[in-house]
Amino acid sequence: MNLKKMTFSNIVVTGANRGIGYEFVAHLLAQTPAPKNVIATTRQPSEELNKLKSTNSNLHILTYDATNYNSYPDFVDQVSKIVGPDGIDLLINNAGIYVSGNLETVKAQDVLRNIEVNAVAPLELTRALLSLLKVSSVKKQKTVVANISSMAGSIGDNTSGSAMISIPYRSSKAALNMITRSLAMDLKETAIIVLAIHPGWVQTDMGGQRAPLTPLASVTGMSEMLAKVNMEQTGSFVNHLGKELPW
Amino acid sequence: MNLKKMTFSNIVVTGANRGIGYEFVAHLLAQTPAPKNVIATTRQPSEELNKLKSTNSNLHILTYDATNYNSYPDFVDQVSKIVGPDGIDLLINNAGIYVSGNLETVKAQDVLRNIEVNAVAPLELTRALLSLLKVSSVKKQKTVVANISSMAGSIGDNTSGSAMISIPYRSSKAALNMITRSLAMDLKETAIIVLAIHPGWVQTDMGGQRAPLTPLASVTGMSEMLAKVNMEQTGSFVNHLGKELPW
Repeated sequence: MNLKKMTFSNIVVTGANRGIGYEFVAHLLAQTPAPKNVIATTRQPSEELNKLKSTNSNLHILTYDATNYNSYPDFVDQVSKIVGPDGIDLLINNAGIYVSGNLETVKAQDVLRNIEVNAVAPLELTRALLSLLKVSSVKKQKTVVANISSMAGSIGDNTSGSAMISIPYRSSKAALNMITRSLAMDLKETAIIVLAIHPGWVQTDMGGQRAPLTPLASVTGMSEMLAKVNMEQTGSFVNHLGKELPW
Repeated sequence: MNLKKMTFSNIVVTGANRGIGYEFVAHLLAQTPAPKNVIATTRQPSEELNKLKSTNSNLHILTYDATNYNSYPDFVDQVSKIVGPDGIDLLINNAGIYVSGNLETVKAQDVLRNIEVNAVAPLELTRALLSLLKVSSVKKQKTVVANISSMAGSIGDNTSGSAMISIPYRSSKAALNMITRSLAMDLKETAIIVLAIHPGWVQTDMGGQRAPLTPLASVTGMSEMLAKVNMEQTGSFVNHLGKELPW
């Protein structure tokens, strides 16, 4: 399949009120040619996201509550009206949380909650938006589902246990990686690329200020990587520069 | 550390009413020297498990409801009274379920339920029994937590998606593998070995009758492997013959 288009036109980014999600939205809006529609989802829009909206008519801010599955049909309707017959060519499942809990303190419900927000909700949202993703892919537009995962979800790389990174968070990202891989295999025939991406250790509320990467550096890397990615890489786990990572 | 002991004395096996769990219990009871205590847990004892009990006074059948965490303290008390000052030297987290659900049919609650039974409950049980496992390990007895996982939980090996194996089951075993690895790293200092084991494709209710391995062949392999395993292998994912598998 010949996929020459290197930019995306109709994009959904979840968890866009701050951190990597916000930075991704700002970065995508600044690209040339500008995307037709960037749909930024949040539970409650931040001041900076509203500010971005005031200068970008192609930015749409929608309310999305990840684990309120009953609200999905209404959300999909809204997205569908915005993107129209083009469908969605890039879905960035970025919304996520970090729930604490080491060997001594972890609670069963915390593990389940972290997994639900970080892994199950992206699965459910991708399924809910699947017909709009397929609308794009059948037009031979490069169509990508980018799941923002974490190196903390690499089982093989885990040499520090829960002393460094919580059991709920590690488990949630491992589950997201498996869901990514399963979706990629299930969607191979439709030519929808599905990736798990480690954004790097980024200066955000979650990453802290000692992190080596700025949100802009991470997002620029991911954006360039997504522009180049093809079907051969579907179902893989890569960092923000496209380097493959161990499961 | 010199760990010469090749057999286990005080063993807990969950999900022992049928399949691999039952076979493991029967196999362990038949070993020479016989283990002091085999604690077989089930929600409701099967006829065959009760029959085994009638000829083995070292077999103890306890009720264990994996996701009823409030019942754990009482369960731990019962185990503690049975094993006494020896503690537990082998915990086999075998209880598990298969919840269906492919790309079209999967439900969020099914993913969470499968993950809770197959991954979160083993974590919670291991934590609940940790003081009894440590009692064994501080006596320089080889002490092992064996989590019965599945090749279906290998992310790297997943080339067939949800067409072959459900998303809930795959996710649950990937989460169990991450939890295994985290526990192994957390427990390295205590010399407790933690493994994720693929029992092979076994003729059970879950595996079906076309499976190539009998329960006995699988359990014999796992038993021999556990007799040989050492701290260098802690935190790895192996099959019933000890061969390392990709995460």
